[in-house]
Amino acid sequence: MTALQILGLTAGTITSITFLPQVIHIWKTKSAKDLSMNMLLLLILGVSMWLTYGILVADAAIIYTNSMVLAMSLIMLVFKLKFK
Amino acid sequence: MTALQILGLTAGTITSITFLPQVIHIWKTKSAKDLSMNMLLLLILGVSMWLTYGILVADAAIIYTNSMVLAMSLIMLVFKLKFK
Repeated sequence: MTALQILGLTAGTITSITFLPQVIHIWKTKSAKDLSMNMLLLLILGVSMWLTYGILVADAAIIYTNSMVLAMSLIMLVFKLKFK
Repeated sequence: MTALQILGLTAGTITSITFLPQVIHIWKTKSAKDLSMNMLLLLILGVSMWLTYGILVADAAIIYTNSMVLAMSLIMLVFKLKFK
């Protein structure tokens, strides 16, 4: 594996877990009022398109990363609606 | 331009503006307590690595998208420190 591949893999792994602390944060505080609903909707839209792109080009890294971010985004959306 | 390229370009454009509504939201409410600091740090780290990756593989779309997200992330970090 080249240094470039390791960099891409590490970047993808970090991106895939980026929103996990945010999900935990909202769950603990039961508050999501500072989260922008428009940000969440753009995130879900963008990530869904990346996921579609990844499936079409059959790129496992794009599919994996964006599946993870999409799952976290949907949880954040539910939390945003639940904890105003 | 193929449908696949249009999809990738649109996904990249949406990703690049995803955090703009969040920056505006915090600026208006002067509150960022519901934002997870660990999420912001992971976002900055991941995006910085993607930016480095984009520069190394000379991919303009990766460089552009991640520069935008990095700029927004740094503004959110400053806001997080300013508006506790």
